[in-house]
Amino acid sequence: MHPTGVDRGLAVLADPTRARILRMIRDAETGRVLVGNLAETLGLAQPTVSHHMRALLDEGVVERERDGRRVWYSLSPNSSDRVLALLGDPAQPVEPDIARISDDLSARFRGILSRETVAHYVADSHRLLAEGSRSPHLASRTAAFSATRLEDLARSNERDGAERPEVLFVCVQNAGRSQLAAAILRQLAGDRVVVRTAGSAPAGEVRAAIVNALDEIGVPIGGEFPKPLTDEAVKAADVVVTMGCGDACPIYPGRRYLDWELDDPVGRTPDQVRAIRDDIDRRVRALLGELISTASFVRLP
Amino acid sequence: MHPTGVDRGLAVLADPTRARILRMIRDAETGRVLVGNLAETLGLAQPTVSHHMRALLDEGVVERERDGRRVWYSLSPNSSDRVLALLGDPAQPVEPDIARISDDLSARFRGILSRETVAHYVADSHRLLAEGSRSPHLASRTAAFSATRLEDLARSNERDGAERPEVLFVCVQNAGRSQLAAAILRQLAGDRVVVRTAGSAPAGEVRAAIVNALDEIGVPIGGEFPKPLTDEAVKAADVVVTMGCGDACPIYPGRRYLDWELDDPVGRTPDQVRAIRDDIDRRVRALLGELISTASFVRLP
Repeated sequence: MHPTGVDRGLAVLADPTRARILRMIRDAETGRVLVGNLAETLGLAQPTVSHHMRALLDEGVVERERDGRRVWYSLSPNSSDRVLALLGDPAQPVEPDIARISDDLSARFRGILSRETVAHYVADSHRLLAEGSRSPHLASRTAAFSATRLEDLARSNERDGAERPEVLFVCVQNAGRSQLAAAILRQLAGDRVVVRTAGSAPAGEVRAAIVNALDEIGVPIGGEFPKPLTDEAVKAADVVVTMGCGDACPIYPGRRYLDWELDDPVGRTPDQVRAIRDDIDRRVRALLGELISTASFVRLP
Repeated sequence: MHPTGVDRGLAVLADPTRARILRMIRDAETGRVLVGNLAETLGLAQPTVSHHMRALLDEGVVERERDGRRVWYSLSPNSSDRVLALLGDPAQPVEPDIARISDDLSARFRGILSRETVAHYVADSHRLLAEGSRSPHLASRTAAFSATRLEDLARSNERDGAERPEVLFVCVQNAGRSQLAAAILRQLAGDRVVVRTAGSAPAGEVRAAIVNALDEIGVPIGGEFPKPLTDEAVKAADVVVTMGCGDACPIYPGRRYLDWELDDPVGRTPDQVRAIRDDIDRRVRALLGELISTASFVRLP
């Protein structure tokens, strides 16, 4: 993208009236609005609104669709991702449909876990994610977090049958160190090791600096997001690696506990983040070597 | 987030000089700069630069760090994600370290696939992703795409041992219909079904409207991204579901082919996207019912 293009796009959106117009389009149930509706709701003259629409149209931010004598405006598909990011959170965040998520996950775990157990974990996961820093996509994160917890629960119930070692990385925000370690271990181990992460005080998002530091070494972050430490994650783990989270982690017999002393990458320069990443990389490789030689199995990933 | 706050933040960043300053900080090897460096590079007087830094500091966009008589500026950790998104693509995108990715994935597939095979697939995946629309995080996507392809290759080699059915969803951009179908099937099936997607002409990103439509029903998109259709994905699949991609899909004997006639959600209103999503949801549930009753196994997810 050409820098000048970025700056012009920003300038066009910086106008507060245009931001209000774009929010109205975003929040419209059908995803499109008429100039007349905009003028009425915003308390502006139609020519004023038309002037703003022309500027947004010229920048490719909105699209126009004729319907007889009426002209509908909608967000342009090509720029809507960026516009939605710029506008920030939607006015009315989606309230998770706990019953639907419970139904879907009950279907997934049929024959393994009861509907009541699944529903309990879905409701509890929703509560945990909602009470921390505001999670975007709370509904789908509730489902993903619940599913991981239910898998751990099922694994603990069937511990004899567990053939793959499980490693849990715990740091404070679950947005830096634990995500670096987990992503590198997943890259190297694939399906041979079950990898989990948690934070004693989870942040809202994995930090962009961490995603970039991983991308530099070709390691994907996947769909990971910060989440709290829960009991069944520790119970299901064979190895628990703590990184600066103090005494937040409950202790169960039979698990191996490691404490890695690592600097917190928050607020560090890219070079400092790289040094922390490479330190974690060395530790993860050593840990994987031990896990694989202990298990000494070769398994289809 | 309060709307006024968003608009003020936008206005502060809309100034082209400030955007240039933020790009210089972002691109600095150490992640921080001195006012003197900025003034020299931008050809501006120091007081002018200091005035801009004050505005950025007041908005919480940058942070200041004293080092003797020098004052370093860096992006504030709390707003850096948003600032990096606003600035668009980095000036110098990371060139994937193909050798490192090949080493890491060779370790993952040791005993299953040769180093040469892994290196070939990594190089080929990089080429395929780089030639389409520009992928962000090309290095980590190269690794993720390669790993999926290598898993499919290993599965095809060991077809007798394959105990889980594999379903491949193919549409044009791999950014809408195929992602909706795959995410819903993963939610319902967990590990009981291997789910893959591809596009005959992949877009750069899964569209935000699709991610939101999935979030509304509590279905996570995970770390998915659009990617091209490749031979081993079709070979590894038991069922190939095409959705509007015409004749792009190669035909192999022994696979089941389904063609789902669905509207393309690109440019549709949120209500129209929901209708397409719910249509896909019904078809996916019916397909899963067939797959599970055919296989008739219960397996730990």
